[in-house]
Amino acid sequence: MTRTPSAVISPTGTPHPFGGVFAMLAPHMAALDQFLLGQLAAFEPEIRAMVNYCIDTSGKRIRPALVFLSGWRDADEVSPELVRAAVVVELVHLATLVHDDIMDSAEVRRGRRTAVREFAPTAAVLLGDALFAHALHLATQFPTTEVCAAVSESTRRVCAGEIVQSLRRGSTDLTPADYRRIIDLKTAELFRVSCYLGGRLAGSEDGYVGALDRFGRHLGIAYQIYDDLADFFGREEKIGKTLGTDLASGKFTLPLFALMDRLAPSEREALSGEIGGLRPSQPALRRMQMLDLGVFDAVEAAVQGEVSAARAVLSEWPGHLPTRHLLALSDVLLAQVAALRPVG
Amino acid sequence: MTRTPSAVISPTGTPHPFGGVFAMLAPHMAALDQFLLGQLAAFEPEIRAMVNYCIDTSGKRIRPALVFLSGWRDADEVSPELVRAAVVVELVHLATLVHDDIMDSAEVRRGRRTAVREFAPTAAVLLGDALFAHALHLATQFPTTEVCAAVSESTRRVCAGEIVQSLRRGSTDLTPADYRRIIDLKTAELFRVSCYLGGRLAGSEDGYVGALDRFGRHLGIAYQIYDDLADFFGREEKIGKTLGTDLASGKFTLPLFALMDRLAPSEREALSGEIGGLRPSQPALRRMQMLDLGVFDAVEAAVQGEVSAARAVLSEWPGHLPTRHLLALSDVLLAQVAALRPVG
Repeated sequence: MTRTPSAVISPTGTPHPFGGVFAMLAPHMAALDQFLLGQLAAFEPEIRAMVNYCIDTSGKRIRPALVFLSGWRDADEVSPELVRAAVVVELVHLATLVHDDIMDSAEVRRGRRTAVREFAPTAAVLLGDALFAHALHLATQFPTTEVCAAVSESTRRVCAGEIVQSLRRGSTDLTPADYRRIIDLKTAELFRVSCYLGGRLAGSEDGYVGALDRFGRHLGIAYQIYDDLADFFGREEKIGKTLGTDLASGKFTLPLFALMDRLAPSEREALSGEIGGLRPSQPALRRMQMLDLGVFDAVEAAVQGEVSAARAVLSEWPGHLPTRHLLALSDVLLAQVAALRPVG
Repeated sequence: MTRTPSAVISPTGTPHPFGGVFAMLAPHMAALDQFLLGQLAAFEPEIRAMVNYCIDTSGKRIRPALVFLSGWRDADEVSPELVRAAVVVELVHLATLVHDDIMDSAEVRRGRRTAVREFAPTAAVLLGDALFAHALHLATQFPTTEVCAAVSESTRRVCAGEIVQSLRRGSTDLTPADYRRIIDLKTAELFRVSCYLGGRLAGSEDGYVGALDRFGRHLGIAYQIYDDLADFFGREEKIGKTLGTDLASGKFTLPLFALMDRLAPSEREALSGEIGGLRPSQPALRRMQMLDLGVFDAVEAAVQGEVSAARAVLSEWPGHLPTRHLLALSDVLLAQVAALRPVG
């Protein structure tokens, strides 16, 4: 099922960086984009241009893909309920990106200036709030409170994860369990709820919805570990955001854990100093060490382990339509991690 | 019905700054505080201390009061539905305060360090998000999506108002209509929805709910004009927040509009420079001019005008129980404005 990314054209006409199963989602993503653009009118005229800037169409749309694939019934059907749920999770994600970029003082996101650089941090804080409020408002347009309840709880957990990460910034006394807890909250939670909502809205039985939920959580953890590796080994023009910010901003991620473990005790203090902001960061040196000391391999293995756990959950439900497509999506993630490895 | 503020003791044991009808809400406010504190357990352990810092019990609780009074049926009854709705609007309000204080770089709120000073801006951004997400989650615990829909839409409007204000900061080419639009969105909206929810949850007929809604909106505009006057004429120990920030931070509020109108053309440039941050602000001089040139009177008259409009809406419904109490609340606001006038 896995194709090379360049072989696949996304709904917006450019190759989707994740390729693969995204190709069959073209009509769904077109409906998503149309729905998203249609929401502009719901915002006050004074802030529409700012909202429009955030609702661009160049994101990877992974969370919407999880909603669509988890609720998959028929290739010809683009369910309006799934489109609305996909818009809700994507808007929540966009809102958290706006606020994350404030925290990270990030310059570039999706190949252009971040909202915080474009509009100043004060406006960006409230722009994120407005996006989030509108997401929750759309979530109330389902017949029951279930979608809104699930999404608002997830959002609180995403924020809690980001807060914990921000409080521990620059600190190297984090344990691997702390790291896992942070990425479970800040990333896996929204992956999880995307799969959960897809399954629920498609009317799947409770057992399968539970499996989708657990699949999404494992995939989200795998994705964040991939993303943390990409911060060191990605190519900026491909990833579309400023890279190398984790070390520079003191985020102690899995690649840095693994490197710290493998450095001689005498060399650890220098790395701690870089993470703690006491010394200038040396990303080129750290990348080289990561390759030489087997850090890349170890982190790739961690992604593979989480993807295996995700796949194992769904393997008990081979006859259900979403299963095959979600397994294909997890293949794409594995291919993306492998593609980060420098050539030669 | 209006009593002097000092004659009334709030549920937390200190005189409520607004006194009056708040006295009869003591059991309601106690239930509100208990419910609010009970929510701490719903937050991730790592952020509970921060949430607790925000959920203090020393706020004025005006929006909860509007929920309780608009849904008033019987003094002996503390309706759990009204308590939950009051908690929802208060949490949304607390979340916006956390974000506003980031934008204003405010040091003091409710007599102590703001969350942004206590926890750093990055954590405060996400703390506000978590409070807001939890408010919306509580709003999903009603039988239908109506409360969540109303509150999420209101929140988006509040954010839009704050964004517009922030984009126009330092500018004196605002019109009075722009100012009214900003305060309608950023303040009156949450007053309005508080009254609306109280009426709806109490099962009032649509006509009366509409009247409560319009009353809340006028009262919210009146309250914000009062608050803008208090920024110049309040006493810090009584208001509990840093005063004089509007001029220093370039917010062109009604007192400054009215002053600009009354200054000789030759003097206007200096005031524009203070608002635009080109000259140091001269709050003592501006206060003196506001008194001498009738600005205080004009702004007080504007508050009275909005309160009159609010009262007129309810006067068509004299037999309904909330009417009397809400009129008493509007009396309290008038007394508060009058009390801002310097003695002698």
